Amino acid sequence: MTLKNDRFLRALRREPVDRTPVWLMRQAGRYLPEYRATRQRAGSFLAMAQNPEIACEITLQPLARFDLDAAILFSDILTVPDAMGLGLYFVEGEGPKFRSPVRDAAAISRLAVPDMETELRYVMDAVRLIRRELDGRVPLIGFSGSPWTLACYMVEGGGSENFATIKALALNDPAALHALLSVNTDAVIAYLSAQRAAGAQALQVFDTWGGALSPAMYREFSLPYLTRIARELERGIEPPRQGGEDAEHTPLIVFGKGNAPYLEELAASGAEALGVDWLVELSEAARRTQGKVALQGNLDPTMLYGSPDAIRTQVRNALDSYAAGNGGSRDGHVFNLGHGMSPDMNPEHVAVLVEEVHAHSAR
Amino acid sequence: MTLKNDRFLRALRREPVDRTPVWLMRQAGRYLPEYRATRQRAGSFLAMAQNPEIACEITLQPLARFDLDAAILFSDILTVPDAMGLGLYFVEGEGPKFRSPVRDAAAISRLAVPDMETELRYVMDAVRLIRRELDGRVPLIGFSGSPWTLACYMVEGGGSENFATIKALALNDPAALHALLSVNTDAVIAYLSAQRAAGAQALQVFDTWGGALSPAMYREFSLPYLTRIARELERGIEPPRQGGEDAEHTPLIVFGKGNAPYLEELAASGAEALGVDWLVELSEAARRTQGKVALQGNLDPTMLYGSPDAIRTQVRNALDSYAAGNGGSRDGHVFNLGHGMSPDMNPEHVAVLVEEVHAHSAR
Repeated sequence: MTLKNDRFLRALRREPVDRTPVWLMRQAGRYLPEYRATRQRAGSFLAMAQNPEIACEITLQPLARFDLDAAILFSDILTVPDAMGLGLYFVEGEGPKFRSPVRDAAAISRLAVPDMETELRYVMDAVRLIRRELDGRVPLIGFSGSPWTLACYMVEGGGSENFATIKALALNDPAALHALLSVNTDAVIAYLSAQRAAGAQALQVFDTWGGALSPAMYREFSLPYLTRIARELERGIEPPRQGGEDAEHTPLIVFGKGNAPYLEELAASGAEALGVDWLVELSEAARRTQGKVALQGNLDPTMLYGSPDAIRTQVRNALDSYAAGNGGSRDGHVFNLGHGMSPDMNPEHVAVLVEEVHAHSAR
Repeated sequence: MTLKNDRFLRALRREPVDRTPVWLMRQAGRYLPEYRATRQRAGSFLAMAQNPEIACEITLQPLARFDLDAAILFSDILTVPDAMGLGLYFVEGEGPKFRSPVRDAAAISRLAVPDMETELRYVMDAVRLIRRELDGRVPLIGFSGSPWTLACYMVEGGGSENFATIKALALNDPAALHALLSVNTDAVIAYLSAQRAAGAQALQVFDTWGGALSPAMYREFSLPYLTRIARELERGIEPPRQGGEDAEHTPLIVFGKGNAPYLEELAASGAEALGVDWLVELSEAARRTQGKVALQGNLDPTMLYGSPDAIRTQVRNALDSYAAGNGGSRDGHVFNLGHGMSPDMNPEHVAVLVEEVHAHSAR
C-alpha cells in the first residue's frame, strides 16, 4: 500500500522532505471533546485501550482535525506488565496502579515474557485495524515503555514522586533489578516486534523516568537496556526500497524525559531517532548527535497555554534552533512536544502549532 | 565569637580543611521523632516557623544527633510572599498554598518589598536566637527562595505539576512576569541582608523550579535574577580576616534543581558556591566550574533508603567524584544531598552518611 504522506518516515531516515513532519505525544486524548465523548460511552480508559474498535476510533480522532504527519496507537505503556500478571487498574485522578507489584528477587523470578498474539492480542488487533482504517494516509507509530520505566511502575506499584522503592532495590539488590530489567527488555523487544508484524511503521520507546536517575545509575539501569533494544529489535533492511512503496525498514525512536546528558551515548545506541524534551536546545542536541540520528521534539507542552502568536514564535524558534545545529538544514527533524499533552489544552492552539510547523518549514 | 567548627565556611572559600564538611537539606524535619513531638505541641508547620523559640529548637535538633558542620534556619521559602500579603497557608498532605495568588500586571504592580524588621521580624528573631544558642558550635545558614521559584508559587497559588499558569504568563505578558521577578529580587536581597545582619553566616538561595524551564526561558526568567542577587547582595569584605574570628564575609550558595546545563553561567554569577542535584556527576561539575566556585552536593536523597553499606559506597563515590574533577583535591566541596530529605527516612542512615563523609574525607 502506498503511503500518501511519508514525510515522517523520510525525516526519521534524514532524507529530504517538503516540510518538517509533526505529531504530538498524547495527540489523542482528553483535550479533545470527541475523545471525552467516546470515553463516556466506553466507561473507562482501560476499556477503551482494550477494545480495538475504540482504540482505532480514538487513534484517528486528531487526524480528522489537524494536518498531522503520523498516527500513534492509542494504548497504555503498562499493557506489558499487565499481561505479565501484575493487574493494571486506574483510580480516577491518581494514575495507573498495579494490584501485585514486584518488589523482590522471588517475585521477579516468576515473571515471563507474555505471548503477544494471545495475551496482548487486543493491541495487535488494534494495530491491524488502525492500519486498515488509515488506508495509507499517514504512518502508524507503535510504542512501548522502556525497561526502566516499566520497572518503576512494577516495583513502586504505580506512579511515584521520588522512586524510593525501586532506588532502594537498585542499591540493596542490584542483581534482582537487573533480572527485572532483563525480562522487561525481552518483553519490550517481543512487543515491538509484534506491533511491527501487525503493521506499525515506526516504533517509539518511552523512557519517561530515566531522567530521575543519577548519571551512574542511568548508565547502569536504563541506557544498556535501551541499547539492547536498539541492537536486537529486528526492523528490516536498511536502506529501504525506494519509491512510494511501504518501507521495509521500521525506524526506532528512543524518547527520554531528561535524556539531554546522554545524547551522545543514545546516538550510538543504534536507534534511528532520539526524542528529546525541552530542557535542551535543539541546536545543541543536533550538534552533539552530529547527524547520526534524527531528532524528535521538543517544545515545552505548556507553550500551548500561550496565545496563538506566542505559540507561532515558539514553533519557529524550535524549528530554527534545529536547523542552526544541523548545518542549516531542516532535514532529520520531526517536530513534537517534549512531553505529552494535558487535558486542559485548547484544540485550537494545537491547530495553530501544526499549521505553523508546516508553514515555517516549507522548503 | 570564635567558631569552634569553621570547616563549612572554609570549604565555601575553597580553603583547606581537615575533612569535608557536611549538612543536609531539610536536616531538621519530619524524619526526626523529636521534630514530630515539637510539631504535635506547636500545632502546625506555620506556627512553628513563626515562633522563634520553636524555630530555634527545631534548627538545633539534628545537631544533637549528628556531627553536622552547619545549621540551617528552620523556616519556609514562602515567608517573603506571605509578608507581601499573599496569605500563605498549608493543607495537610498538599503543600503550601496562597489565598491571593498574583496573576496579572495589576496584581503584580501592587506588590512591594516587605519591611524585614517588622513584617518578617519573627525570622530575624529566630536567626538571632539560634546564633546565641549555637554559641559558635557551627555556622548558621540563612536562606531564601529564588525570584523565579517564589514567582512560581505566587502565580500558581501553590505547587504545580507543569507550571501552566506562570508559563502562560511568561508567554503572554513577559513584562508583567519580569516586574514580578524584579520585585522578588529586591525582596530576596533585602531578606538575605537582614538575615545576615541578624547573624546568618552563610546564605543559600533555593532555585527549586528553575529546572522546569527551557534553556531560553531559564536564561530569561531565572538566571539573570540569580545573578543580580549575587552581584548586589552586600556580604562583606573578601578575603575575610584570618584566624578563628568570625569571618566578615558571608558566602552565598546558589542551589538549583536541574541547574546542570547552566553551571558555567552560574559560576560566573558572583556566587561563592553552587548547590547541584544528583543529575550531574560532581567530577563533571567541578571540571566545568574550574575552581571558580565551591560546590555543594549532590547525593540523590533516596540513597538514604539503601542499606548502611550501600550508603557508605554512595558517599565515597560522591566524595571521590568531586576530587577527580578538582585536580585530586577535596577542597572546595561541601557534602550535601541533591534535594531535601523526606519524612520516611531513617535517622540511623543519616548518622551513617555523616560519619562516612568525615571518615572517608579525612586529610
